[in-house]
Formats: sequence, C-alpha cells, structure tokens
Amino acid sequence: MENFIAYNPTKLHFGKDVLNEIDKTILTYGKKVLLVYGKNAIKKNGLYDIVVSKLKKAGIEIFEYSGIKANPISEDVDAAAKIGRLNNVDLILAVGGGSVIDSAKIIAITIPVTHTCWDFYEGKSKPQKAIPLIAVLTLAATGTEMNPYAVLQNIDAKKKDGYGNSLIFPAHSYLDPQNTYTVPKDQTAYGIVDLIAHCLEAYFGNGKANLSDKFVISIIKEALEIGPKLMNNLNNYEYRERIMYAATYALNGTCFNGRTSGDWGVHSIGHTFSLLYDIAHGASLSIAYPAWLKLQKARIPERIAELGLGLFGVKTADETIVQFEKIFKTIGSPLSMNDTNVKNIDKKEIFEVMKQNKVSGANHKLSTEDYMKIIDLTC
Amino acid sequence: MENFIAYNPTKLHFGKDVLNEIDKTILTYGKKVLLVYGKNAIKKNGLYDIVVSKLKKAGIEIFEYSGIKANPISEDVDAAAKIGRLNNVDLILAVGGGSVIDSAKIIAITIPVTHTCWDFYEGKSKPQKAIPLIAVLTLAATGTEMNPYAVLQNIDAKKKDGYGNSLIFPAHSYLDPQNTYTVPKDQTAYGIVDLIAHCLEAYFGNGKANLSDKFVISIIKEALEIGPKLMNNLNNYEYRERIMYAATYALNGTCFNGRTSGDWGVHSIGHTFSLLYDIAHGASLSIAYPAWLKLQKARIPERIAELGLGLFGVKTADETIVQFEKIFKTIGSPLSMNDTNVKNIDKKEIFEVMKQNKVSGANHKLSTEDYMKIIDLTC
Repeated sequence: MENFIAYNPTKLHFGKDVLNEIDKTILTYGKKVLLVYGKNAIKKNGLYDIVVSKLKKAGIEIFEYSGIKANPISEDVDAAAKIGRLNNVDLILAVGGGSVIDSAKIIAITIPVTHTCWDFYEGKSKPQKAIPLIAVLTLAATGTEMNPYAVLQNIDAKKKDGYGNSLIFPAHSYLDPQNTYTVPKDQTAYGIVDLIAHCLEAYFGNGKANLSDKFVISIIKEALEIGPKLMNNLNNYEYRERIMYAATYALNGTCFNGRTSGDWGVHSIGHTFSLLYDIAHGASLSIAYPAWLKLQKARIPERIAELGLGLFGVKTADETIVQFEKIFKTIGSPLSMNDTNVKNIDKKEIFEVMKQNKVSGANHKLSTEDYMKIIDLTC
Repeated sequence: MENFIAYNPTKLHFGKDVLNEIDKTILTYGKKVLLVYGKNAIKKNGLYDIVVSKLKKAGIEIFEYSGIKANPISEDVDAAAKIGRLNNVDLILAVGGGSVIDSAKIIAITIPVTHTCWDFYEGKSKPQKAIPLIAVLTLAATGTEMNPYAVLQNIDAKKKDGYGNSLIFPAHSYLDPQNTYTVPKDQTAYGIVDLIAHCLEAYFGNGKANLSDKFVISIIKEALEIGPKLMNNLNNYEYRERIMYAATYALNGTCFNGRTSGDWGVHSIGHTFSLLYDIAHGASLSIAYPAWLKLQKARIPERIAELGLGLFGVKTADETIVQFEKIFKTIGSPLSMNDTNVKNIDKKEIFEVMKQNKVSGANHKLSTEDYMKIIDLTC
C-alpha cells in the first residue's frame, strides 16, 4: 500500500425519517440558514415544505438560493455566496443531489471571501475557513454527502473541474432513502453508474491496496445485485436504501485508502461530454467507461481480468468489458453518444476540448492518440 | 437495514515512517503531554527513545505513566488521570496496543473529573469533556485506534466491561506497520483472531445489512489470506501492513452500519476467561468462537452457512465451523482452555462469573443452560 491518511468527520444520519431531528442539529450551529436547492423537484415532492415548516417552527430564519443546475456552475455559487455573506448566515442547508451539495460546499468557503469561487479552482486562493454545511441528500449517486470534493463548471472557461479540501466536508448529512423515491428512472440509472464508476476510479488508481480492492468489489457487487431490481421497482425501500448506502461508501474514502489517488481518467473524459452537450454525469460515465476499458485492455489486461473475476466470475479483460456494457444497458444508461439525444456531435470539438482540459488519469495517462481512439469508441 | 449514524472523526495516519510528523500534530494541541505506555516493550524496541527524543526536540514537556497491563485495569487509569490532572496536561499520547490506548481513552475523560473512572462504566457519571488523545499503535488487533470504545477490568468487582462514548475517539492515530515487527508470534496470532472476531460480532449483530456483510467478508478474507503468511514471516512489511489495516477497519464502524448493534456474545464469554485466568483477549476469542458457533448452528444454520460460503466456499454451518477452527489452529491460537497453560480450571467458578456478569449477546441471548454447554465445549 501507499501511505495514506483516512479522515472523514461527516456525521451521516441514515435511514427512515432521519430528518425528524434535523432542526435540533441545525440549532447547534445557529438560527440563520442559507437554504440551497435546485429547481422544482423538492417543491413537487413535498420535501421543501417539510423542511421549511420544520425550520420555521424551530424559529430558524431562512435565506434561500434556488436554481442550482444539474451540471452546477460557478456563477450560481458566487450569487448564493453573496446572499449568505450579506445576511451573515450561521450555516448552509443544502437539499438536493450532488449538484446542490457540491455547490453548497463551495458556497461555504466563498461566503468568507471577497473573490469569486473559481479562484479556488484555479489555485489563486486557499480557503481559511468554511461556514458549516448540513446536507439533505435526495439522489444516490455522487457520494458528495460524505466527502470533501465538489465539481463545478465554469461556462466562460469551458471547464468542468473537481476541487477538494477538508474544510468542505458536510458537518452532517441526512440520508433518508424515501427522499429518493421520486428520482426518475434515468437519473436513478445514472446514479448507479456513477457509484460504480467511483469504485472503478479507485480500483484503477495509484497503488496496490488489496483490502481497498475488496471493498471496491463489495460495493460494485451490491450495485450489480440491487441496481436492476431497483430499476423495476423504483419505490422499493430496501432497494433505494441499499443503492443509497453503496453510493455513499463508493466515494467516502474507504475505497481509496492505500493509494496515492484514484485514476479519474474516465471522469475527465465524461466531463468533456457533459460540458459540451449537457449530458448527465452518470450517462457520460457509462459512455466513457467501456471505451476506456477497451483502450486499456492491451495495457493492463490482468488488472481488468482480476476485477472481472471478482465481480462476474469471468476470466478475461474482454469478458469483463462485456459484463460492464451489459449491466449499463440493463439499467438503461447509454453506451455511446449515439444512444443519447445529442445530434450533430462534433468530434473535432470534443478532441479540442479534451486537449485544452488536458483530459487524463492520474495513474493511466492519456495521450492525444488515446483521445482519438476514445472519441471513435464513444461517438 | 436498521437506521444508523456513521461518525468517525479520528484522523488515521497510516504507513511507513508516519511518526516523522507527530511532533507537529502534538503542538497543535499544546506543549504538556501525558505519555502513557505499558511495560518494557517500547523501551526494548527503541520506540520509546524515538518518540521521547522527538518530543523533547520540539520543546514538548512530558509526564509519564507506564505499566498499563495487558488486561488493563481501572486502578491504573485512575492513577494516570491523577498525574494528568495535577500537571494540567494539554493532551495524552498513548504508545502501545489496545490496552494502552483503551486506558488512555478513559484517562482522557477521567482527568477532568474527581471520581474514579469506574463510575463511567457503572453509569453513575457521564463525561462532559475529554483531553485530546493521540495514539501510536504498536499492535494490530483491537481496532481501538479508530473507534470510541474502551475495555477495562475492575479487579475488586471481578468485572471486565466495554465503554463507548464519542468523546473518546482518538483525535489522531499513527499506524506504522514497522512498529509491529517486534510483536511476538503468539500476540500476532491473537491480534488476527481479534480482528476476525470483531467482524463476526458485526455479522451476527442486530439487523440485516447486506453491504456491511460484504465488508465483513472482505476483511476476514484479507486476514485469511495474509494471517498464515505473516505467522511465517513476522518481519514482512506487506503482511504486517495488511493485517494492521484490516484490524482497524474491523472495528471502526464500517462493518456495523445498518445494524442496531453487534452481537458481542463471544466477547462477553471471552472476557470471563481473561478475567479469571488472565488469558490474552485474542486467545479467549479463538476458544470461545467455535464453541459459540456450535451452540448456534442449530438456531441459525443458514446465517452461519452463508458466511462459510462467502469466506471458504463451503456450504454448511458445520463445515464453516471446521474452517474457523482450522484457521485459528494454523496461526497458533488455542481452540480450548486445554490448549492454554492454565491448570486447575474451575468450571463452577466460570459458570458463576458468567451468571454474575450476565454474559450474553445483544442479538443472540445466552441462557444459563447455554453457559453450561459453552463451558463443556471450551474446557
């Protein structure tokens, strides 16, 4: 193993009706809350009313910022931070999926400063403090509820990037699987792909870590067992619960111990599709992963085959890739850009953006020739 | 799954030479340290000198309490707390195995109070604060380095009990596998048994948690793969490292998520042997587990067989038990009291102490008839 630090101070409240006590937790931080959410989903499914009435009853003052986009943008973060700063909020309450919680994490470090949040992403500034963040998760996918990372997009710069800092761990995260019942079928599938992809990024990262590999296989197996069942029964508590828990542990550090980093090459490829064509994050990953595996199978055949053996009982890299394509297809996530609604795919533009953003993995470097191959395999 | 809270704020520094930076971490808490350790092991292997000279160079003032016993007793905790209190220490540095770190955890909450530490165990007092604790682990076994539990023995009361409180999580734990090279063969084996037993206590606990079961199987598999190799090569870094990491994750909460509790019946039985005959904790568990499984196999045959399938590829509870006996025997841990040095085993006294201490599991209750069967199976 490589030397590592395991540190995760987020308090995860998991299960049925765990929100019942959220007001008490909020009051330990203060009475002025910046409530951050997306578009209308939480208003439609009633969660907004439940949370707001609970907070009001407890005498908590709410300032709102809504409209966080599915692929969240830095402009929203800056606008929300301004509201938090002007009203001197004590904490942030983020209600939503990965995009909302990621945005809230960066809002938490942007409120105390005067520059735009993108300066953190560009390394021009380092945060010294953060406003405490409580997250209420409504989508099982990104694992952001229990990690110190946030992905944002900067429209002007045509960049989508991840940021990590231990200041942005949520202080508390509330995960009630019932709050994911209304997640539509496609988003449910993309969430499953996302959690599998996080495990794979760990598996293909820097450093041999046997127990962490076993954790990777455990979590993906859980997704393979439950994912297809969930797709046929979106209101089943047990299935929602097991996927939600698996998604959290896929990216809360557990799979990364003993490695210097994950690979993240496939995420880097996927971000390019999301950036250019507003493809859902999970969908971009089910497109990119099989292509990446096909590219790597000549380079690391044993490593891919070992994964296939642990997960599917197959013996070769080729069979492993077939199995991944099968599971992504079964749950209804696209395997190529041609499976999406995007018309007029511009291969040249994809190539240019990949070059510009230096798309690569930390462990498995990608060359411009690799870009060409990946584009041919995905478009 | 049962509702659960996952919370673990300990910062784990894992790997080769991680102690190099420990002085910097200590100085973030203060300059007056209560150094707690056991008998002569850390003086013999040089770790004491390394730590003390590092601290002195950094201008850190050291107050010492040594002599913590292998089965730690509350009297030592009270005496150490007195030294910490009189000298107004800023933090505790525990260098040792489970007994030393467990003691240090209770010292941390006993320093701020005036009563004896056993009052916490008897529920007569609740801690309000704790002195920060930094642990340097020298034995892979109990998992105490990353959890909020401490087991102590009270000699007068003839009791050995566990205590849990989130105040006693170590703030930092430093795990350098090199510091376990000098752990003798028998203690190394008992550590492996201990980590396996922790996973089993989770597995047989309250609540069906599929992913946590998979984590249990992952960790035990790691121990099965590496344990026998380590026994034949005590100075192999990779083996020491993998067992050390497995032991930490066996009892840092990961295997317990989605359950209301572990079972802990076997630990409860094992504590009786340790209490009466000063049997090493791990040894008491390799004696008690097969007996407990034999008792339970008629009650929960499928649950035991499911474990056997995941771990050994066997199909019945009986075969599973045989496999556990085989692994304990292979690594050299006793399967019965007759395998130990203890003469004059008093079955009646064991029975009386079990009754007095209400030996039982949280999930699988034990009757006095069960005590008789277990005593016959172990003695």
